[in-house]
Amino acid sequence: MLQEMLKDTVRTKTYQNVIYQNKFLFKNKVVLDVGAGTGILSLFCAKAGAEHVYAVECSHMADMAKEIVEANGYSNVVTVLKGKIEEIELPVAKVDIIISEWMGYFLLFENMLNSVLYARDKWLVDGGVVLPDKASLHLTAIEDADYKEDKIEFWNNVYGFDMSCIKKQAIMEPLVDTVDQNQIATNCQLLKTMDISKMAPGDASFTVPFKLVAERDDYIHALVAYFDVSFTKCHKLMGFSTGPRSRATHWKQTVLYLEDVLTICEGEAIVGSMAVAPNKKNPRDVDIMLKYSLNGRRCNVSRVQYYKMR
Amino acid sequence: MLQEMLKDTVRTKTYQNVIYQNKFLFKNKVVLDVGAGTGILSLFCAKAGAEHVYAVECSHMADMAKEIVEANGYSNVVTVLKGKIEEIELPVAKVDIIISEWMGYFLLFENMLNSVLYARDKWLVDGGVVLPDKASLHLTAIEDADYKEDKIEFWNNVYGFDMSCIKKQAIMEPLVDTVDQNQIATNCQLLKTMDISKMAPGDASFTVPFKLVAERDDYIHALVAYFDVSFTKCHKLMGFSTGPRSRATHWKQTVLYLEDVLTICEGEAIVGSMAVAPNKKNPRDVDIMLKYSLNGRRCNVSRVQYYKMR
Repeated sequence: MLQEMLKDTVRTKTYQNVIYQNKFLFKNKVVLDVGAGTGILSLFCAKAGAEHVYAVECSHMADMAKEIVEANGYSNVVTVLKGKIEEIELPVAKVDIIISEWMGYFLLFENMLNSVLYARDKWLVDGGVVLPDKASLHLTAIEDADYKEDKIEFWNNVYGFDMSCIKKQAIMEPLVDTVDQNQIATNCQLLKTMDISKMAPGDASFTVPFKLVAERDDYIHALVAYFDVSFTKCHKLMGFSTGPRSRATHWKQTVLYLEDVLTICEGEAIVGSMAVAPNKKNPRDVDIMLKYSLNGRRCNVSRVQYYKMR
Repeated sequence: MLQEMLKDTVRTKTYQNVIYQNKFLFKNKVVLDVGAGTGILSLFCAKAGAEHVYAVECSHMADMAKEIVEANGYSNVVTVLKGKIEEIELPVAKVDIIISEWMGYFLLFENMLNSVLYARDKWLVDGGVVLPDKASLHLTAIEDADYKEDKIEFWNNVYGFDMSCIKKQAIMEPLVDTVDQNQIATNCQLLKTMDISKMAPGDASFTVPFKLVAERDDYIHALVAYFDVSFTKCHKLMGFSTGPRSRATHWKQTVLYLEDVLTICEGEAIVGSMAVAPNKKNPRDVDIMLKYSLNGRRCNVSRVQYYKMR
C-alpha cells in the first residue's frame, strides 16, 4: 500500500510539482506535515527551501521516516515526531504551512481530515497556507451490466445454490474500482466543495441534491463518486482529479450499485440527494444515503438506498 | 475475498468433485464442516447424501449461512453453529467425516489447521475421514530481475530520495503473487508432507533441508514456496496444486526474495534448510528462517535470512 501510494504518480508528482514549482511559498517558512508516512512530502518541502519541517506520523513508519531524513542529509531541517497530531507537542507556537495527503477512498473513507483541521486551528498562523486547500466530490451515472452481473448477481446461483441473501449485503458495500469513461451515460455533477482552510469538522457531514441528465439512451446500473483536490495558493492553479476521465490513481472511483436497473432516455434526469456522514460508532467508516428517482418514458422508479464504507 | 475464494474454481470445484464423485463416503454419514463460511461445502455434502452436517463458523457469516441453508431447503440436514470450534457444543458425540478448507497463503499463514486437529481429536470416530487428509509444501527457485527491481530496489531512489532502509524491511516480507512458470530455473523440491488425519499441532513447526539443482544457467532472485493438498480417501486420488505450473488459485505462490542475486550454472545446487514456525506472539503469523549456500563457478554465497508473514 505504501509503495502503491508512492507509485501513484498523479498523487505524488502533483505534490512534488506544487512544492518544487512554488518555492516562493516555502522560502524561510515553517511547515507541518500531517500524517507524514515515509516523510516524502517533508523532504520535498525541505528541498524547496523550507526553514524547518515538522513531520508528524503516528505509525511505526515514523522510525523509518527518521532514518530516511538522516540518510538524505536533512536532519537539520526535518524533525520527525512520532505520535498523534492531537497528542504531540510542537517545539514552535505557530507554523506557516500545513501540508497533508489526508484523502481516503470516496475522499472521506478512513481520512485524516480531522487531524488536518485540528492542526490548522491549533498551529497555523493567521494567513497561513493549507496544502491542498480545496477538495470536491462529484457524481455521475454508469452502465455496468457485466460487472454488476459478475459481482452482485453472482450470488443468485453459486455452484447451484441460492445465496441471494448475501446480495443484499453486497449491494450496500460501495465498490472501489476503476470505471471506464465509456460507461458514463450522464453528465458529471459537482456535489460538494470543501475549503480546507476554513471549514469546520462538521462540514464533512452533508446532504446535497443532484440531477444527472442522460447524454444517450442507456441502462444505469450504478452511480459513481470521485473527488478532485486543488492547491489554489500556487502561482497558477494546480491539482488533480480522481475521476474516470482522468489518469488513474490508487483512489480509483467509488461505485454505488442501484437495486434497480434504470432504463433512461437521452435528456431524462435522475434526480435525488446524497447524504454523507461518518459512521457514529466507527468515525473512520462512512455512511451514505442515496435518494433517487427517475420519471422517464420507459422507467419510473423512486427509491432510498443505504451504503456503508467499512 | 469471500467471492474471490468461491470463484477460485480450482479450490471450490475440487471440493465439489471430491464430494459429488464420492457419494459412497457421505451416504448416511455425519459430517463436521470446520470454518464453514457461506456453508458451500456443507451444502455439497448434504446434496451428496450425508445424514447430517454440522457447519461451524465463528464470524458473522454464520448468520448468512443459516439463511442460505434455509433458502436451499436443507434446514433438516445442515445445522449451522455460530462459534469457535474450541467453544461450541456438538449435539452428537462423534462425527464420521471432518471437512474443511483451512489452508492459508504459504499453506500455514492465518490457517485454521489447529481447529481441524482439535475437532478431529474431540469428535472424529475411529476410522473416520478427514478431507483433505494430505498437505505438502514445495520449494523452487526463480529468476525475477524485473519484479525485484520494481518491488525491492524501488526504495533506493524514490523521487530522488534514498529510502533504502525500507528495503531491508520489504525483503523480509514474503510476497504473495503469481509466478510465471518460465521463471523457474531449478527443480521443485518437496519440503514437507503433513498427514492431517494423524499429525499433532506441533508438526506444523519444522526444519527441513532442501537442494535445488539448476536446470539452466540463470540468475536466482528468489525462492518460491507453494503447496498441494490431496484427498486420498476418494475412489481415486484427487487434489490440487497451487504451484506455478498449475492453474492459478487465489493462494498464488509465496515469493521469498534473496538479499543476494545468485549466479548459477546448470547442474549447480542451492543447498540449505528452511525452518517454519508460527510466530510466538501472534500464532496466526508465520516465521520463516532460510539458510542457503551456493558454491558455484561464478558465485559463492552462504547466508541466513529471516522472513515474517503478517
